[in-house]
Amino acid sequence: MDSRITEHAKILVDYSCEIQEGDHVVVVVEDYGQELAKEIVKLVAQRGGTTVVIQRPPEMERALLDAAPDEYVDRFPDHLFAMIEKTDAYIKIQSTGNTRALGNASSEKLVKYQLMQKPLKEEILKRKWCGTLFPTNALAQEAGMSLSEYEDFVYRATLRDWEKEAQIMYKVKEIIDKGKDVVIEGEDTELTMSIEGRVAVASVGKHNMPSGEVYTAPVDDSTNGHIYFDIPLVYLGSLIEDVRLMLKDGVIVESSASKNEELLKTLIETDGGSRRLGELGIGTNRGIDRFTQNILFDEKIGDTIHLALGNAYKECNGVNESAIHIDIVKSMKNGKILVDGDILQKNGKWCWEL
Amino acid sequence: MDSRITEHAKILVDYSCEIQEGDHVVVVVEDYGQELAKEIVKLVAQRGGTTVVIQRPPEMERALLDAAPDEYVDRFPDHLFAMIEKTDAYIKIQSTGNTRALGNASSEKLVKYQLMQKPLKEEILKRKWCGTLFPTNALAQEAGMSLSEYEDFVYRATLRDWEKEAQIMYKVKEIIDKGKDVVIEGEDTELTMSIEGRVAVASVGKHNMPSGEVYTAPVDDSTNGHIYFDIPLVYLGSLIEDVRLMLKDGVIVESSASKNEELLKTLIETDGGSRRLGELGIGTNRGIDRFTQNILFDEKIGDTIHLALGNAYKECNGVNESAIHIDIVKSMKNGKILVDGDILQKNGKWCWEL
Repeated sequence: MDSRITEHAKILVDYSCEIQEGDHVVVVVEDYGQELAKEIVKLVAQRGGTTVVIQRPPEMERALLDAAPDEYVDRFPDHLFAMIEKTDAYIKIQSTGNTRALGNASSEKLVKYQLMQKPLKEEILKRKWCGTLFPTNALAQEAGMSLSEYEDFVYRATLRDWEKEAQIMYKVKEIIDKGKDVVIEGEDTELTMSIEGRVAVASVGKHNMPSGEVYTAPVDDSTNGHIYFDIPLVYLGSLIEDVRLMLKDGVIVESSASKNEELLKTLIETDGGSRRLGELGIGTNRGIDRFTQNILFDEKIGDTIHLALGNAYKECNGVNESAIHIDIVKSMKNGKILVDGDILQKNGKWCWEL
Repeated sequence: MDSRITEHAKILVDYSCEIQEGDHVVVVVEDYGQELAKEIVKLVAQRGGTTVVIQRPPEMERALLDAAPDEYVDRFPDHLFAMIEKTDAYIKIQSTGNTRALGNASSEKLVKYQLMQKPLKEEILKRKWCGTLFPTNALAQEAGMSLSEYEDFVYRATLRDWEKEAQIMYKVKEIIDKGKDVVIEGEDTELTMSIEGRVAVASVGKHNMPSGEVYTAPVDDSTNGHIYFDIPLVYLGSLIEDVRLMLKDGVIVESSASKNEELLKTLIETDGGSRRLGELGIGTNRGIDRFTQNILFDEKIGDTIHLALGNAYKECNGVNESAIHIDIVKSMKNGKILVDGDILQKNGKWCWEL
């Protein structure tokens, strides 16, 4: 077995979830990832906890969606909920054998099925929880790599000194928390926004592994200017490329894309909140050096920023509300992030690296 | 996908577990069997139920046993117990990738781990439950067949008209329930026992799939004579061949085997109850025509009987108590089963077939 799987499990058990004696753990795998689950089971047992492994391949969920009559598709699994209520830590491992398994499912049923799961998800968020990924051929294919290359990519992003990574994120958070105005400058980009009264969250690897982002929410009505996103946006398997947005007093007034522009416009028109920004995020994971069509990784690419259309996070004191939250990522290798007029990052270097 | 998997799932969902609207189901797979689990998930969704699939490969349990310190190995999974309490039907699918995965585990830890699971098992037995098997290479290897041959074997035993099979078992049960004395005659065999006051159970496929046996418990002190078992006994991976027993007033007074005789004698000497018989079973599944080292199948081979050393089942009004319950199977193709002097079966034909 690849020894990196053991290292990955150690990070999840000891750093992300801080498993203690007596903890009851649930691990969810999709198609693969059993080796990682096994290593987690071992470590949890060593720490004095117990583990239940649930297997939920997207192909199985698709079969359920196709088979269930409309009136049964949102049946709530009371037994699973009862287990989650007694769970201390929940680890979800992306490990699909086919990233398109749910692609052609009935969207009506999918929406019903996802709404049904809301109380489950809320219960999970009350516990220690972490989303992670086990490299599979399907995910490598989505990323445009061989499996070996992709394994190297995933473990380079994941097997990091997270205490050290966290220190960088806390530094960025401190600057943002103190700041009032942010300016993003770059290719075809000049965007200003207020972050006064907002709180930045350092995503140091407790809930996502890999992690590496600091995010906050712009003040409503405050964003002005234009921005060009050189990294594609993936929405349910569709690539939207070369997104350009123009904002006036917090509202998107113009938008374009070189590919799938119609889809972009439809997303922006979802509801009142989807015309506004819900998030400003700064990617800090320099182990992630390329776009792989997987938002767990893409939004954390080192030296990038991302803006989200739609819903803002309450933990940032964000107020914008929307049914959508869609991240769009931009490289900052040739650009600047300014906070209250001072450089936070320039051409991919933090102010303290310049 | 092999369409027999769908038929298998239908039997489990509609016949064995009689899944109703609102039922919450737990399916446990080992290494494989995901195709069968998927078909169960589909059918349960169609009936208006929900399903959680747990994956528990023996290799993962072995890793746990090896990793857990002694004081942690019997930690009780409260969260799993909470789920079982809310579960209506529990389906366990044998589907291992290695039948020897637990073979060299610490037997002390294994005993602790199994004792820990007792309340879980008791909770499962209060619900609808069924044990079944998905053919894997490991199980085929254990049975001495290619995977294709083994698949044919498993589905020939499983995809039967269970209503019709049940009618045969109920006929046998009726004869046994009315009877007082049983005589088993055959090669090197002449055994008599009383079954007065005992109840026969027809195992018609509600808890085992495949099923096909009628079993009861002999009256203590009543068994006399000698018996030769032509089908090997498998105990934790060891084959005990050509078992011969001599009984006097219910107690085994002589025993021999052509292979692993010492192990046989050790088993018989486990405790007071292990020197007596806990069960007389009659295999009725003519889809099972050979020994495959798997007791789910072996004890149901058509036209066989089996006796168990040790513990008797309460549902038969059995009283013998022991830590062990070990079935030993004998072909009755050249023999007779007599109840109160009347032939129940002769040379592999029921009395109504003669």
